[in-house]
Amino acid sequence: MNEVRIIEVKQSVFASNERRADELRKELKEKKVFLLNVMSSPGSGKTTTLTGIINRLKDEFRIGVMEADIDSDVDARTISKNTGVEAVQLHTGGMCHLDSDMTRQGIESFGDYSRFDLIILENVGNLVCPAEFDTGAVKNMCILSVPEGDDKPLKYPLMFEVSNFVLINKIDVAPYFDFDMNRCKENIAYRNPMADIFEVCAKDGRGLDEVAAYIREQIKEWSR
Amino acid sequence: MNEVRIIEVKQSVFASNERRADELRKELKEKKVFLLNVMSSPGSGKTTTLTGIINRLKDEFRIGVMEADIDSDVDARTISKNTGVEAVQLHTGGMCHLDSDMTRQGIESFGDYSRFDLIILENVGNLVCPAEFDTGAVKNMCILSVPEGDDKPLKYPLMFEVSNFVLINKIDVAPYFDFDMNRCKENIAYRNPMADIFEVCAKDGRGLDEVAAYIREQIKEWSR
Repeated sequence: MNEVRIIEVKQSVFASNERRADELRKELKEKKVFLLNVMSSPGSGKTTTLTGIINRLKDEFRIGVMEADIDSDVDARTISKNTGVEAVQLHTGGMCHLDSDMTRQGIESFGDYSRFDLIILENVGNLVCPAEFDTGAVKNMCILSVPEGDDKPLKYPLMFEVSNFVLINKIDVAPYFDFDMNRCKENIAYRNPMADIFEVCAKDGRGLDEVAAYIREQIKEWSR
Repeated sequence: MNEVRIIEVKQSVFASNERRADELRKELKEKKVFLLNVMSSPGSGKTTTLTGIINRLKDEFRIGVMEADIDSDVDARTISKNTGVEAVQLHTGGMCHLDSDMTRQGIESFGDYSRFDLIILENVGNLVCPAEFDTGAVKNMCILSVPEGDDKPLKYPLMFEVSNFVLINKIDVAPYFDFDMNRCKENIAYRNPMADIFEVCAKDGRGLDEVAAYIREQIKEWSR
Protein backbone atom coordinates (compact mmCIF):
# COMPACT_ATOMS: atom_id res chain seq x y z
CA MET A 1 0.00 0.00 0.00
CA ASN A 2 1.42 3.34 -1.02
CA GLU A 3 1.24 6.39 1.21
CA VAL A 4 -0.76 9.23 -0.34
CA ARG A 5 1.21 12.42 -0.67
CA ILE A 6 -0.44 15.79 -0.98
CA ILE A 7 1.17 18.35 -3.25
CA GLU A 8 -0.04 21.94 -3.04
CA VAL A 9 0.05 23.36 -6.56
CA LYS A 10 -0.74 27.04 -6.63
CA GLN A 11 -1.39 29.88 -9.01
CA SER A 12 -2.17 33.50 -8.30
CA VAL A 13 -5.77 34.48 -8.95
CA PHE A 14 -8.15 37.31 -9.84
CA ALA A 15 -8.66 40.81 -8.51
CA SER A 16 -11.25 41.82 -5.97
CA ASN A 17 -14.86 41.79 -7.08
CA GLU A 18 -16.57 42.19 -3.71
CA ARG A 19 -16.94 45.95 -3.60
CA ARG A 20 -18.76 46.13 -6.90
CA ALA A 21 -20.96 43.17 -5.90
CA ASP A 22 -21.96 45.06 -2.75
CA GLU A 23 -22.77 48.15 -4.82
CA LEU A 24 -25.03 46.08 -7.07
CA ARG A 25 -26.76 44.50 -4.07
CA LYS A 26 -27.36 47.96 -2.55
CA GLU A 27 -28.91 49.13 -5.82
CA LEU A 28 -31.12 46.03 -5.93
CA LYS A 29 -32.24 46.74 -2.36
CA GLU A 30 -33.21 50.32 -3.25
CA LYS A 31 -35.21 49.12 -6.25
CA LYS A 32 -36.69 46.21 -4.25
CA VAL A 33 -35.50 43.66 -6.76
CA PHE A 34 -34.47 40.24 -5.47
CA LEU A 35 -31.60 38.64 -7.38
CA LEU A 36 -31.27 34.88 -6.99
CA ASN A 37 -28.07 33.21 -8.18
CA VAL A 38 -28.49 29.54 -9.09
CA MET A 39 -25.43 27.31 -9.31
CA SER A 40 -24.73 23.61 -9.90
CA SER A 41 -22.76 21.10 -11.95
CA PRO A 42 -23.67 20.61 -15.59
CA GLY A 43 -26.72 18.42 -15.91
CA SER A 44 -28.01 18.57 -12.34
CA GLY A 45 -31.32 20.01 -13.52
CA LYS A 46 -31.08 23.78 -13.07
CA THR A 47 -33.33 24.72 -15.98
CA THR A 48 -36.06 22.16 -15.20
CA THR A 49 -36.02 23.13 -11.52
CA LEU A 50 -36.24 26.82 -12.33
CA THR A 51 -39.13 26.22 -14.70
CA GLY A 52 -41.06 24.56 -11.87
CA ILE A 53 -40.23 27.30 -9.37
CA ILE A 54 -41.07 30.14 -11.79
CA ASN A 55 -44.42 28.62 -12.67
CA ARG A 56 -45.26 28.56 -8.95
CA LEU A 57 -44.30 32.22 -8.42
CA LYS A 58 -45.06 34.03 -11.67
CA ASP A 59 -48.64 35.02 -10.80
CA GLU A 60 -47.44 36.81 -7.68
CA PHE A 61 -44.15 38.30 -8.78
CA ARG A 62 -42.79 39.92 -11.92
CA ILE A 63 -39.91 37.67 -12.93
CA GLY A 64 -36.94 38.02 -15.27
CA VAL A 65 -34.44 35.27 -16.02
CA MET A 66 -30.82 35.40 -17.13
CA GLU A 67 -29.42 32.15 -18.50
CA ALA A 68 -25.65 32.11 -18.54
CA ASP A 69 -23.95 29.66 -20.84
CA ILE A 70 -20.74 29.39 -22.73
CA ASP A 71 -22.56 28.69 -25.93
CA SER A 72 -26.08 27.90 -27.20
CA ASP A 73 -29.34 29.58 -26.26
CA VAL A 74 -31.14 26.34 -25.42
CA ASP A 75 -31.85 27.28 -21.80
CA ALA A 76 -33.29 30.76 -22.36
CA ARG A 77 -35.56 29.36 -25.06
CA THR A 78 -36.69 26.55 -22.77
CA ILE A 79 -37.44 28.90 -19.88
CA SER A 80 -39.22 31.37 -22.13
CA LYS A 81 -41.29 28.65 -23.78
CA ASN A 82 -42.20 26.79 -20.60
CA THR A 83 -42.92 29.74 -18.30
CA GLY A 84 -43.68 32.72 -20.52
CA VAL A 85 -41.47 35.03 -18.46
CA GLU A 86 -38.87 37.30 -19.99
CA ALA A 87 -35.53 35.51 -20.40
CA VAL A 88 -32.16 36.58 -21.74
CA GLN A 89 -29.23 34.36 -22.60
CA LEU A 90 -25.85 35.53 -21.38
CA HIS A 91 -22.90 34.23 -23.34
CA THR A 92 -19.77 34.26 -21.29
CA GLY A 93 -17.36 33.94 -24.21
CA GLY A 94 -15.80 30.80 -22.73
CA MET A 95 -15.68 32.12 -19.16
CA CYS A 96 -16.53 29.62 -16.48
CA HIS A 97 -18.42 31.93 -14.15
CA LEU A 98 -20.08 35.33 -13.83
CA ASP A 99 -18.69 38.10 -11.66
CA SER A 100 -20.72 41.11 -10.51
CA ASP A 101 -19.86 43.22 -13.53
CA MET A 102 -20.95 40.52 -15.93
CA THR A 103 -24.12 40.06 -13.88
CA ARG A 104 -24.75 43.79 -14.01
CA GLN A 105 -24.39 43.77 -17.80
CA GLY A 106 -27.07 41.09 -17.90
CA ILE A 107 -29.42 42.93 -15.53
CA GLU A 108 -29.02 46.21 -17.36
CA SER A 109 -29.80 44.50 -20.65
CA PHE A 110 -33.39 44.37 -19.35
CA GLY A 111 -33.49 48.17 -19.45
CA ASP A 112 -35.34 49.52 -16.40
CA TYR A 113 -35.03 46.38 -14.33
CA SER A 114 -36.99 47.82 -11.39
CA ARG A 115 -40.05 46.46 -13.20
CA PHE A 116 -39.10 43.04 -11.80
CA ASP A 117 -39.59 41.72 -8.27
CA LEU A 118 -37.37 38.74 -8.88
CA ILE A 119 -34.47 38.26 -11.27
CA ILE A 120 -33.02 34.77 -11.49
CA LEU A 121 -29.50 34.18 -12.70
CA GLU A 122 -28.79 30.66 -13.88
CA ASN A 123 -25.03 30.61 -13.59
CA VAL A 124 -22.68 28.53 -15.79
CA GLY A 125 -22.88 24.81 -14.99
CA ASN A 126 -19.82 24.44 -12.82
CA LEU A 127 -19.41 23.44 -9.19
CA VAL A 128 -16.15 25.31 -8.78
CA CYS A 129 -15.63 28.76 -10.25
CA PRO A 130 -19.05 30.41 -9.88
CA ALA A 131 -18.69 29.97 -6.10
CA GLU A 132 -15.57 32.11 -6.13
CA PHE A 133 -17.26 35.20 -7.49
CA ASP A 134 -19.89 37.24 -5.66
CA THR A 135 -22.38 38.12 -8.39
CA GLY A 136 -24.17 40.72 -6.28
CA ALA A 137 -27.08 38.31 -5.72
CA VAL A 138 -29.22 38.53 -2.60
CA LYS A 139 -29.13 34.76 -2.12
CA ASN A 140 -27.27 31.83 -3.63
CA MET A 141 -29.06 28.58 -4.39
CA CYS A 142 -27.16 25.41 -5.25
CA ILE A 143 -28.54 22.25 -6.82
CA LEU A 144 -26.89 18.89 -6.21
CA SER A 145 -28.39 15.90 -7.99
CA VAL A 146 -28.43 12.35 -6.65
CA PRO A 147 -26.33 10.82 -9.49
CA GLU A 148 -23.45 13.17 -8.66
CA GLY A 149 -22.97 11.50 -5.29
CA ASP A 150 -23.38 12.41 -1.63
CA ASP A 151 -19.68 13.25 -1.24
CA LYS A 152 -19.69 16.37 -3.42
CA PRO A 153 -19.82 18.85 -0.50
CA LEU A 154 -16.53 17.35 0.70
CA LYS A 155 -14.86 17.79 -2.65
CA TYR A 156 -16.28 21.18 -3.65
CA PRO A 157 -16.32 22.98 -0.32
CA LEU A 158 -16.69 26.59 -1.41
CA MET A 159 -19.88 26.00 -3.41
CA PHE A 160 -21.63 24.71 -0.30
CA GLU A 161 -20.11 27.36 1.96
CA VAL A 162 -21.49 30.22 -0.14
CA SER A 163 -24.92 28.70 -0.81
CA ASN A 164 -27.79 29.89 1.39
CA PHE A 165 -29.90 26.91 0.41
CA VAL A 166 -29.32 23.64 -1.37
CA LEU A 167 -31.74 21.54 -3.42
CA ILE A 168 -31.04 17.82 -3.64
CA ASN A 169 -32.57 16.99 -7.01
CA LYS A 170 -33.47 13.79 -8.89
CA ILE A 171 -34.58 11.98 -5.72
CA ASP A 172 -36.70 9.75 -7.99
CA VAL A 173 -33.60 7.85 -9.14
CA ALA A 174 -32.07 7.45 -5.67
CA PRO A 175 -32.81 3.68 -5.62
CA TYR A 176 -30.46 3.19 -8.58
CA PHE A 177 -27.45 4.93 -7.06
CA ASP A 178 -25.26 4.46 -4.00
CA PHE A 179 -26.57 7.66 -2.51
CA ASP A 180 -27.06 8.14 1.22
CA MET A 181 -29.45 11.06 1.80
CA ASN A 182 -28.52 11.46 5.46
CA ARG A 183 -24.82 11.45 4.71
CA CYS A 184 -25.37 14.01 1.95
CA LYS A 185 -27.17 16.32 4.37
CA GLU A 186 -24.44 15.84 6.96
CA ASN A 187 -21.81 16.70 4.36
CA ILE A 188 -23.67 19.87 3.38
CA ALA A 189 -24.09 20.82 7.05
CA TYR A 190 -20.39 20.14 7.63
CA ARG A 191 -19.54 22.78 5.03
CA ASN A 192 -22.37 25.12 5.97
CA PRO A 193 -24.48 24.50 9.09
CA MET A 194 -26.73 27.45 8.14
CA ALA A 195 -27.74 26.11 4.73
CA ASP A 196 -31.39 25.14 4.31
CA ILE A 197 -31.82 21.87 2.43
CA PHE A 198 -34.72 20.69 0.25
CA GLU A 199 -35.27 17.30 -1.35
CA VAL A 200 -36.84 17.72 -4.77
CA CYS A 201 -37.63 16.01 -8.05
CA ALA A 202 -37.89 18.71 -10.66
CA LYS A 203 -39.17 16.20 -13.21
CA ASP A 204 -42.40 15.41 -11.29
CA GLY A 205 -42.49 18.56 -9.14
CA ARG A 206 -41.97 16.90 -5.78
CA GLY A 207 -40.70 19.38 -3.17
CA LEU A 208 -41.01 22.44 -5.41
CA ASP A 209 -44.00 23.89 -3.52
CA GLU A 210 -41.82 24.09 -0.41
CA VAL A 211 -38.96 25.72 -2.33
CA ALA A 212 -41.32 28.25 -3.92
CA ALA A 213 -42.79 29.11 -0.49
CA TYR A 214 -39.28 29.57 0.88
CA ILE A 215 -38.25 31.89 -1.96
CA ARG A 216 -41.54 33.80 -1.59
CA GLU A 217 -40.65 34.60 2.02
CA GLN A 218 -37.15 35.70 1.07
CA ILE A 219 -38.48 38.08 -1.59
CA LYS A 220 -41.02 39.60 0.82
CA GLU A 221 -38.36 40.13 3.46
CA TRP A 222 -36.02 41.78 0.95
CA SER A 223 -38.64 44.21 -0.35
CA ARG A 224 -39.78 45.39 3.09
CA MET B 1 -43.87 34.46 -26.24
CA ASN B 2 -40.82 36.56 -25.59
CA GLU B 3 -37.94 36.75 -28.01
CA VAL B 4 -34.68 35.46 -26.55
CA ARG B 5 -31.92 38.01 -26.59
CA ILE B 6 -28.28 37.04 -26.50
CA ILE B 7 -25.93 39.27 -24.54
CA GLU B 8 -22.21 38.72 -24.99
CA VAL B 9 -20.58 39.37 -21.63
CA LYS B 10 -16.82 39.30 -21.83
CA GLN B 11 -13.76 39.37 -19.66
CA SER B 12 -10.12 39.21 -20.62
CA VAL B 13 -8.45 35.89 -19.88
CA PHE B 14 -5.19 34.20 -18.97
CA ALA B 15 -1.75 34.22 -20.49
CA SER B 16 -0.40 31.66 -22.91
CA ASN B 17 0.33 28.23 -21.54
CA GLU B 18 0.83 26.37 -24.80
CA ARG B 19 4.57 26.70 -25.20
CA ARG B 20 5.31 25.22 -21.80
CA ALA B 21 2.78 22.44 -22.41
CA ASP B 22 4.63 21.56 -25.63
CA GLU B 23 7.92 21.51 -23.75
CA LEU B 24 6.50 19.10 -21.20
CA ARG B 25 5.09 16.86 -23.95
CA LYS B 26 8.48 16.80 -25.68
CA GLU B 27 10.16 15.77 -22.42
CA LEU B 28 7.54 13.03 -21.93
CA LYS B 29 8.21 11.75 -25.45
CA GLU B 30 11.96 11.56 -24.78
CA LYS B 31 11.37 9.64 -21.56
CA LYS B 32 8.69 7.47 -23.22
CA VAL B 33 6.12 8.37 -20.61
CA PHE B 34 2.48 8.63 -21.70
CA LEU B 35 0.50 11.30 -19.85
CA LEU B 36 -3.28 10.88 -19.96
CA ASN B 37 -5.44 13.81 -18.86
CA VAL B 38 -8.89 12.78 -17.62
CA MET B 39 -11.65 15.38 -17.43
CA SER B 40 -15.37 15.43 -16.58
CA SER B 41 -18.07 17.05 -14.48
CA PRO B 42 -18.11 16.37 -10.76
CA GLY B 43 -19.67 12.99 -10.04
CA SER B 44 -19.50 11.48 -13.51
CA GLY B 45 -17.38 8.60 -12.24
CA LYS B 46 -13.77 9.50 -13.01
CA THR B 47 -12.23 7.70 -10.05
CA THR B 48 -14.25 4.50 -10.43
CA THR B 49 -13.57 4.41 -14.17
CA LEU B 50 -9.84 4.95 -13.66
CA THR B 51 -9.73 2.21 -11.05
CA GLY B 52 -11.18 -0.22 -13.61
CA ILE B 53 -8.80 0.89 -16.36
CA ILE B 54 -5.72 0.81 -14.14
CA ASN B 55 -6.50 -2.70 -12.91
CA ARG B 56 -6.66 -3.82 -16.54
CA LEU B 57 -3.27 -2.25 -17.43
CA LYS B 58 -1.12 -2.39 -14.30
CA ASP B 59 0.46 -5.79 -15.01
CA GLU B 60 1.76 -4.54 -18.34
CA PHE B 61 2.68 -0.96 -17.59
CA ARG B 62 4.21 0.95 -14.67
CA ILE B 63 1.51 3.44 -13.71
CA GLY B 64 1.45 6.59 -11.58
CA VAL B 65 -1.68 8.60 -10.80
CA MET B 66 -2.17 12.26 -9.96
CA GLU B 67 -5.53 13.11 -8.43
CA ALA B 68 -6.30 16.81 -8.64
CA ASP B 69 -8.86 18.21 -6.26
CA ILE B 70 -9.62 21.46 -4.58
CA ASP B 71 -9.75 19.80 -1.21
CA SER B 72 -9.76 16.32 0.36
CA ASP B 73 -7.56 13.35 -0.51
CA VAL B 74 -10.43 10.92 -0.95
CA ASP B 75 -9.61 10.10 -4.57
CA ALA B 76 -5.90 9.40 -4.20
CA ARG B 77 -6.64 7.14 -1.25
CA THR B 78 -9.34 5.32 -3.22
CA ILE B 79 -7.07 4.77 -6.23
CA SER B 80 -4.16 3.68 -4.09
CA LYS B 81 -6.32 1.28 -2.06
CA ASN B 82 -8.18 -0.21 -5.03
CA THR B 83 -5.32 -0.56 -7.51
CA GLY B 84 -2.10 -0.57 -5.49
CA VAL B 85 -0.40 1.86 -7.87
CA GLU B 86 1.43 4.97 -6.72
CA ALA B 87 -0.94 7.93 -6.38
CA VAL B 88 -0.45 11.54 -5.36
CA GLN B 89 -3.14 14.06 -4.53
CA LEU B 90 -2.71 17.49 -6.07
CA HIS B 91 -4.42 20.29 -4.22
CA THR B 92 -5.13 23.21 -6.47
CA GLY B 93 -5.74 25.75 -3.70
CA GLY B 94 -9.19 26.56 -5.02
CA MET B 95 -8.17 26.62 -8.67
CA CYS B 96 -10.64 25.11 -11.08
CA HIS B 97 -8.16 23.49 -13.46
CA LEU B 98 -4.53 22.49 -13.96
CA ASP B 99 -2.22 24.18 -16.42
CA SER B 100 1.02 22.66 -17.67
CA ASP B 101 3.13 24.14 -14.89
CA MET B 102 0.86 22.76 -12.21
CA THR B 103 0.89 19.41 -14.02
CA ARG B 104 4.67 19.51 -14.14
CA GLN B 105 4.83 20.15 -10.39
CA GLY B 106 2.71 17.04 -9.90
CA ILE B 107 4.82 14.90 -12.26
CA GLU B 108 8.09 16.04 -10.71
CA SER B 109 6.77 15.23 -7.24
CA PHE B 110 7.25 11.58 -8.29
CA GLY B 111 11.03 12.21 -8.48
CA ASP B 112 12.48 10.38 -11.51
CA TYR B 113 9.21 9.94 -13.32
CA SER B 114 10.78 8.06 -16.24
CA ARG B 115 10.17 4.95 -14.12
CA PHE B 116 6.54 5.15 -15.31
CA ASP B 117 5.12 4.12 -18.68
CA LEU B 118 1.79 5.80 -17.98
CA ILE B 119 0.94 8.73 -15.76
CA ILE B 120 -2.75 9.52 -15.37
CA LEU B 121 -3.92 12.96 -14.35
CA GLU B 122 -7.43 13.08 -12.94
CA ASN B 123 -8.22 16.74 -13.47
CA VAL B 124 -10.55 18.83 -11.27
CA GLY B 125 -14.22 17.87 -11.74
CA ASN B 126 -15.30 20.63 -14.07
CA LEU B 127 -16.60 20.54 -17.64
CA VAL B 128 -15.44 24.07 -18.43
CA CYS B 129 -12.06 25.32 -17.27
CA PRO B 130 -9.82 22.25 -17.55
CA ALA B 131 -10.56 22.22 -21.28
CA GLU B 132 -9.05 25.68 -21.64
CA PHE B 133 -5.61 24.70 -20.43
CA ASP B 134 -3.25 22.36 -22.24
CA THR B 135 -1.72 20.31 -19.42
CA GLY B 136 1.00 18.87 -21.61
CA ALA B 137 -0.81 15.53 -21.79
CA VAL B 138 -0.39 13.23 -24.77
CA LYS B 139 -4.13 12.56 -24.93
CA ASN B 140 -7.27 13.97 -23.33
CA MET B 141 -10.05 11.66 -22.19
CA CYS B 142 -13.44 13.00 -21.21
CA ILE B 143 -16.17 11.19 -19.29
CA LEU B 144 -19.81 12.13 -19.72
CA SER B 145 -22.34 10.26 -17.60
CA VAL B 146 -25.89 9.45 -18.65
CA PRO B 147 -27.61 11.44 -15.84
CA GLU B 148 -25.92 14.64 -17.06
CA GLY B 149 -27.87 14.52 -20.29
CA ASP B 150 -27.15 13.98 -23.98
CA ASP B 151 -27.07 17.75 -24.68
CA LYS B 152 -23.85 18.48 -22.78
CA PRO B 153 -21.59 18.57 -25.89
CA LEU B 154 -23.79 21.41 -27.17
CA LYS B 155 -23.43 23.43 -23.97
CA TYR B 156 -19.79 22.74 -23.17
CA PRO B 157 -18.24 22.76 -26.63
CA LEU B 158 -14.56 23.16 -25.81
CA MET B 159 -14.39 20.09 -23.57
CA PHE B 160 -15.53 17.89 -26.42
CA GLU B 161 -13.39 19.69 -28.99
CA VAL B 162 -10.18 19.05 -27.04
CA SER B 163 -10.96 15.44 -26.03
CA ASN B 164 -9.40 12.69 -28.12
CA PHE B 165 -11.84 10.15 -26.76
CA VAL B 166 -15.03 10.24 -24.76
CA LEU B 167 -16.47 7.65 -22.38
CA ILE B 168 -20.24 7.66 -21.91
CA ASN B 169 -20.53 6.29 -18.39
CA LYS B 170 -23.36 4.95 -16.20
CA ILE B 171 -25.12 3.28 -19.12
CA ASP B 172 -26.75 0.97 -16.54
CA VAL B 173 -29.14 3.75 -15.45
CA ALA B 174 -30.05 4.88 -18.98
CA PRO B 175 -33.61 3.45 -18.68
CA TYR B 176 -34.35 5.90 -15.85
CA PHE B 177 -33.31 9.05 -17.71
CA ASP B 178 -34.41 10.84 -20.85
CA PHE B 179 -31.12 10.03 -22.51
CA ASP B 180 -30.81 9.34 -26.22
CA MET B 181 -27.53 7.51 -26.87
CA ASN B 182 -27.56 8.19 -30.61
CA ARG B 183 -28.23 11.88 -30.12
CA CYS B 184 -25.44 12.04 -27.54
CA LYS B 185 -22.99 10.50 -30.02
CA GLU B 186 -24.16 12.87 -32.73
CA ASN B 187 -23.66 15.83 -30.40
CA ILE B 188 -20.13 14.67 -29.56
CA ALA B 189 -19.36 14.15 -33.26
CA TYR B 190 -20.78 17.60 -34.03
CA ARG B 191 -18.17 19.13 -31.71
CA ASN B 192 -15.42 16.72 -32.65
CA PRO B 193 -15.81 14.29 -35.57
CA MET B 194 -12.44 12.72 -34.71
CA ALA B 195 -13.32 11.75 -31.13
CA ASP B 196 -13.53 8.04 -30.39
CA ILE B 197 -16.53 7.15 -28.23
CA PHE B 198 -16.99 4.27 -25.77
CA GLU B 199 -20.09 3.24 -23.85
CA VAL B 200 -19.15 2.05 -20.39
CA CYS B 201 -20.46 1.25 -16.94
CA ALA B 202 -17.58 1.69 -14.53
CA LYS B 203 -19.61 0.16 -11.72
CA ASP B 204 -19.89 -3.28 -13.33
CA GLY B 205 -16.94 -2.97 -15.72
CA ARG B 206 -18.90 -3.04 -18.97
CA GLY B 207 -16.88 -1.54 -21.84
CA LEU B 208 -13.68 -1.09 -19.86
CA ASP B 209 -11.82 -3.90 -21.65
CA GLU B 210 -12.26 -1.98 -24.90
CA VAL B 211 -11.08 1.27 -23.33
CA ALA B 212 -8.04 -0.44 -21.79
CA ALA B 213 -7.15 -1.99 -25.17
CA TYR B 214 -7.46 1.42 -26.82
CA ILE B 215 -5.20 3.09 -24.25
CA ARG B 216 -2.72 0.19 -24.54
CA GLU B 217 -2.35 0.92 -28.28
CA GLN B 218 -1.90 4.63 -27.64
CA ILE B 219 0.87 3.98 -25.11
CA LYS B 220 2.67 1.60 -27.47
CA GLU B 221 2.51 4.07 -30.29
CA TRP B 222 3.85 6.89 -28.09
CA SER B 223 6.82 4.87 -26.83
CA ARG B 224 7.93 3.71 -30.28
